[in-house]
Amino acid sequence: MKKRPLILVTNDDGITAPGLRTLVKVMNKIGEVVVVAPDSPQSGMGHAITVDDTLYCRKENIDNGPQTEYSTSGTPADCVKLAVNEILKHKPDLCVSGINHGSNASINVIYSGTMSAAIEAGVEGIPSIGFSMCDYSWNASFELCEKYVEIISRQVLKKSSKKSIILNVNFPKMNNGSKYKGVKIARQAKSYWKETFDKRENPNGRKYYWLTGEHINLDKGKETDQWALKNGYISIVPIMYDMTSYSEIEEIKKWNLDGYG
Amino acid sequence: MKKRPLILVTNDDGITAPGLRTLVKVMNKIGEVVVVAPDSPQSGMGHAITVDDTLYCRKENIDNGPQTEYSTSGTPADCVKLAVNEILKHKPDLCVSGINHGSNASINVIYSGTMSAAIEAGVEGIPSIGFSMCDYSWNASFELCEKYVEIISRQVLKKSSKKSIILNVNFPKMNNGSKYKGVKIARQAKSYWKETFDKRENPNGRKYYWLTGEHINLDKGKETDQWALKNGYISIVPIMYDMTSYSEIEEIKKWNLDGYG
Repeated sequence: MKKRPLILVTNDDGITAPGLRTLVKVMNKIGEVVVVAPDSPQSGMGHAITVDDTLYCRKENIDNGPQTEYSTSGTPADCVKLAVNEILKHKPDLCVSGINHGSNASINVIYSGTMSAAIEAGVEGIPSIGFSMCDYSWNASFELCEKYVEIISRQVLKKSSKKSIILNVNFPKMNNGSKYKGVKIARQAKSYWKETFDKRENPNGRKYYWLTGEHINLDKGKETDQWALKNGYISIVPIMYDMTSYSEIEEIKKWNLDGYG
Repeated sequence: MKKRPLILVTNDDGITAPGLRTLVKVMNKIGEVVVVAPDSPQSGMGHAITVDDTLYCRKENIDNGPQTEYSTSGTPADCVKLAVNEILKHKPDLCVSGINHGSNASINVIYSGTMSAAIEAGVEGIPSIGFSMCDYSWNASFELCEKYVEIISRQVLKKSSKKSIILNVNFPKMNNGSKYKGVKIARQAKSYWKETFDKRENPNGRKYYWLTGEHINLDKGKETDQWALKNGYISIVPIMYDMTSYSEIEEIKKWNLDGYG
């Protein structure tokens, strides 16, 4: 009998988030599941790691399922590091992160705790997938995603045995009753957040801000994740963490940087 | 008379860090300087942003220099967003972040608050440079860097007027009296951190961890930042924030993701 794959599940919304509970349910069909997730929401944590503070880790039993679960006081990237180095008996065959309550398409990938966990797993040589749904509501229904979460996860397990792979999967928000049009393998759209700061005063008269913003898509390309999502498709962007801008290297080599005046 | 450029200075070690004070000193020679930096150390913050908490911002006067300074309760990326949207009178001509106390070469770029500030500026269309020194000591001497910080900053101001650019600049740790061998334009070396968790027990008997680790360079290429630094050169890696792994798109398009069984 073939051994069941070992699957690490994490997220950035915290261990009790409905999105993570959906992932656990689907992954229990595929393999042996270990959850190592933050004990509280960590949205917007980017690829933060805890270097100057202590890390707590506690065994949890949340729904009496067959999976093993741990909550930690750390960030999503911390969870992956702790899981791989302290908790799991061997390197997992797959790491899934999410399902995030909110989009991680386009520029959101760099702010995303969900994706940082998937990228951290990738850096450690573990095939990984970050799943996100373009619906910020805590009570969003993940039912429509489940089938595709399973298909994509099984495919990654099947195809990535010889090399690492990191996928950024986003599910569009659908109107009641509509189904996804399918899956698009896409590139990250060029976009940014146009911030506005909501200025307030606390009861002691000290001013403070809330960060709010509007997402601006600068990229009209049909091969982008934003196009796919806008048109009812699930977007899948393969991710790499080499941030070198190769096309600029030769140009900068011509600059006069050694001499001075 | 030509207008002096507006320069935003930030970091992740906090507004009083010697590395930032060095940047302020050098930038005062080049332009009009506004500092917006965290009020406390934010190392390892990656590209975190503050979405579920309040942000405080306070005017500071630290050394009676000509620059204007603000400290914030936020992350390095928050500092850039606050500066651009609330503090600065117009978009800065340059954003410099650092000088970080410790390396941000190779894989460190994804964990680095210093670089996340530079990348955030880049996303907002501001030419930017993250400076780091491969010496974790708080009392490290930045004297040797100063000349090159000035050369590189002036070049970016000169060359980037028509397009955005983000540089990851790392200074090697030199033995007493040695000089840098020069500058290498490099690519990000493939590397990872091999973690070990230091397990302890707090006075109440609860177990906790400290994250520690060893940096493993998997990349022997002479065109990498790690090679440059090891051999006494300053490394400069041009950075982009499109994390799409383009080479994998065609392969994944062949997967069976729409159908099921």
